Amino acid sequence: MKLAENLVTFRLRLKNIPGTLGKALTVIGKLGGSMGNIQIIKADKEFKIRDLAVYVSTDKQIKEIMDALSAIGKDIVEVISVKDKVFELHEKGKIFLCNRISITTFEDLSRVYTPGVAKVCKAIQEKPGLAMEYTIIKNTVAVITDGTAILGLGDIGPVAGMPVMEGKAMLFKAFGNIDAFPILLNTKDVDEIVKTIINIAPTFGGINLEDISAPRCFEIEKRLKTALNIPVFHDDQHGTAVVCLAGLINALKVVGKKIENISVAISGAGAAGMSIAKILLSAGATNIVVCDTSGIIYKGRAINMNPAKNDLAQITNPDNEKGTIADAMRGKDVFIGVSGPNVITKDMVKTMHKDPIVFAMANPNPEIEPDSIEDIARIIATGRSDYHNQINNVLCFPGLFRGALDIGATTINDEMNMAAAYAIANTIDEEHLSEDYIIPSVFNEKVHNEVAMAVADAAVKSGVATRQML
Amino acid sequence: MKLAENLVTFRLRLKNIPGTLGKALTVIGKLGGSMGNIQIIKADKEFKIRDLAVYVSTDKQIKEIMDALSAIGKDIVEVISVKDKVFELHEKGKIFLCNRISITTFEDLSRVYTPGVAKVCKAIQEKPGLAMEYTIIKNTVAVITDGTAILGLGDIGPVAGMPVMEGKAMLFKAFGNIDAFPILLNTKDVDEIVKTIINIAPTFGGINLEDISAPRCFEIEKRLKTALNIPVFHDDQHGTAVVCLAGLINALKVVGKKIENISVAISGAGAAGMSIAKILLSAGATNIVVCDTSGIIYKGRAINMNPAKNDLAQITNPDNEKGTIADAMRGKDVFIGVSGPNVITKDMVKTMHKDPIVFAMANPNPEIEPDSIEDIARIIATGRSDYHNQINNVLCFPGLFRGALDIGATTINDEMNMAAAYAIANTIDEEHLSEDYIIPSVFNEKVHNEVAMAVADAAVKSGVATRQML
Repeated sequence: MKLAENLVTFRLRLKNIPGTLGKALTVIGKLGGSMGNIQIIKADKEFKIRDLAVYVSTDKQIKEIMDALSAIGKDIVEVISVKDKVFELHEKGKIFLCNRISITTFEDLSRVYTPGVAKVCKAIQEKPGLAMEYTIIKNTVAVITDGTAILGLGDIGPVAGMPVMEGKAMLFKAFGNIDAFPILLNTKDVDEIVKTIINIAPTFGGINLEDISAPRCFEIEKRLKTALNIPVFHDDQHGTAVVCLAGLINALKVVGKKIENISVAISGAGAAGMSIAKILLSAGATNIVVCDTSGIIYKGRAINMNPAKNDLAQITNPDNEKGTIADAMRGKDVFIGVSGPNVITKDMVKTMHKDPIVFAMANPNPEIEPDSIEDIARIIATGRSDYHNQINNVLCFPGLFRGALDIGATTINDEMNMAAAYAIANTIDEEHLSEDYIIPSVFNEKVHNEVAMAVADAAVKSGVATRQML
Repeated sequence: MKLAENLVTFRLRLKNIPGTLGKALTVIGKLGGSMGNIQIIKADKEFKIRDLAVYVSTDKQIKEIMDALSAIGKDIVEVISVKDKVFELHEKGKIFLCNRISITTFEDLSRVYTPGVAKVCKAIQEKPGLAMEYTIIKNTVAVITDGTAILGLGDIGPVAGMPVMEGKAMLFKAFGNIDAFPILLNTKDVDEIVKTIINIAPTFGGINLEDISAPRCFEIEKRLKTALNIPVFHDDQHGTAVVCLAGLINALKVVGKKIENISVAISGAGAAGMSIAKILLSAGATNIVVCDTSGIIYKGRAINMNPAKNDLAQITNPDNEKGTIADAMRGKDVFIGVSGPNVITKDMVKTMHKDPIVFAMANPNPEIEPDSIEDIARIIATGRSDYHNQINNVLCFPGLFRGALDIGATTINDEMNMAAAYAIANTIDEEHLSEDYIIPSVFNEKVHNEVAMAVADAAVKSGVATRQML
């Protein structure tokens, strides 16, 4: 994987003779490493231990530098450890619990714990709604995974997925001021997962399902939404769909087309593809064709189907198109990719309708290299932060949950998702829209609050709110 | 319930004529409220809204003051709200999540989330042990309840129990620097509880079961200990037992008796009573008699038994005593109460052996009023902070888990519990021990660390450690 420039710290034991450090630096320089700070950690007559901070641009370089340093000879240069900034930031994990009140006296203890706490418990027992005022429940969201679809890495297990869940929790905090806590599931069985989440649900004000593989994720989400009266959201489906629609709303303004009239080819029939197709239909699109690895999905296709794809075949592909992704793209206004790297070509984009809109959102490597179609596509968006027009889920879920929690929404419905999409899109005034600015940055100061307000409003209007906004 | 002196804020709308505030203050003073700050919140021609901080000593007083203020007449004095310090401290809950790193740039995002996070995930996938270094798992403990035995309040449900769970999490943080997170269970079924906890266990470095009623708690703990290879601890059983033993070790030093030779009467055969009986046996006691509401438990008793009590009958009561709690106490060296208020009398204590030791630990009201037996019992301990010799679980669990987590213990065994008890007891040097100082304060700077070190050491010696202490 290509990294953003990456700071790596090599801890070396260097023989205490003139020229040793120079040898090491020469090796690092030759392999493209750019030097940062050099610090002495320990020194004696024979050896110096030094930390060398080195900027590299690929993980491969780190390995090459290690090997080359080792090749100098262990008696001259020994690599003690290699730490990069990313691993360093992950040490001990990325989130922690804090006490809102410090406990330094028996008086404190008697207020936050026994005996004082008993009257708060009794008050909640008598009037359960008080739990929203006097406990963490209202502001707490579970980020739950079974580890089956972690990023693009696949089924690597829940524990290996923990860094993603912690990262997600950080984003909930940073952008929504929501206390999100990861829950790793020790089972992949749909019944078990549903039952387990229902059993721990009283702890939380909302449930965010994360990186659970399709088609299991559809059933899990559906059953939880039925069973629970708190917001349940599968970000990989609806978060992606909401932000994709937001981008498309603005892209269509730029090219001067109406969503009712456009035709769309989607590559990918997993969680995201399904959900994007559905939200575009809700938003007014009528002509959508979805492809998977077996080509276009149509009513009655025999191979590689599942119940979710069968449902999809009923509501998309009105002209009953068949064939490959190349066939699907011919004459279409919009391509949306949520599949894998390099599944479409420059030539395919050339066959699209006038002013092609290409959302190549596969992560980390898009369906087509954006640079290669700069002159062909009118608008290009990806999932990456190093190109313009990043379709980033972080634009949606913090504000969406903020609004849903504040208003006491009993669910997250289509109206709320749609409201979130329009709120994101409308963050950019029409006069500022352009081919390379159809979607706001996640660091836009307004966007998360606008999403929260719009979602809360939609919850009230659709009758799922149980509280008033303060 | 009697409270420690309690600060209550009355928000009043007062008619803007001379003498109104004086009327209100007179009422409050007559009912025993002592005035703190008085602040104007808002004022217009007709009315002033003021916050009056009032110190009261019982909850009953708050109600009386409210009623008396209202009796003045709504056109003169209106009570807008009454907030007390305890409820105020509970607003929004008592704990929250924090990010270890702030996210202000795309660079930050790419390191804590995608794409950077992927390589940490892959590293853990290849070498699962790295999860202990690069995620929160190692330092995270679940505080799990089904709400069936919250404090002395009984089965008030998990949500009403949340303030206790949050308080517990605060204590884990304050005294053990452990990130504890509450989990409320939506089921009371033993099988469901066990399965649910196993299903979410990968999230945590340890499991603390809290306020789950007996005898279900015994089976739940036993099955979880078998199924999981992380520390599982039911504080109501073992925490209480460990601290009780710690107190007894020191009490016996003061009265000059040996644990092998003493006789003990225990009142209460719930989670705590069972566990205390067992740890005293492990520590060398031989003559223990346990009573429940049906009197002394003996082999073959017909009424009010359960499997746990049957087991207990096998290992206690060597002389096959029968009868009431009064019979049980006659001639005993030690009384330990983990039952309810006022179940023993002054006369019963008088029948005990020379230098009676009385641990009346029922909460919030002990088995006998300590003041009433001051001249009879040589040593008195309770569960309360407003008497000396407080047998407080907080002395045990933060250090116990700290030691177990740091050493990577796969369980918490008897050796570790015993080590914790001796570490607590030994925090007080023998020359400082006295009748009213047999147990350290939870604010003792040494105790939690001493417990952690002793527990880690016991884990190593008993072969359940998987890491080395740093």
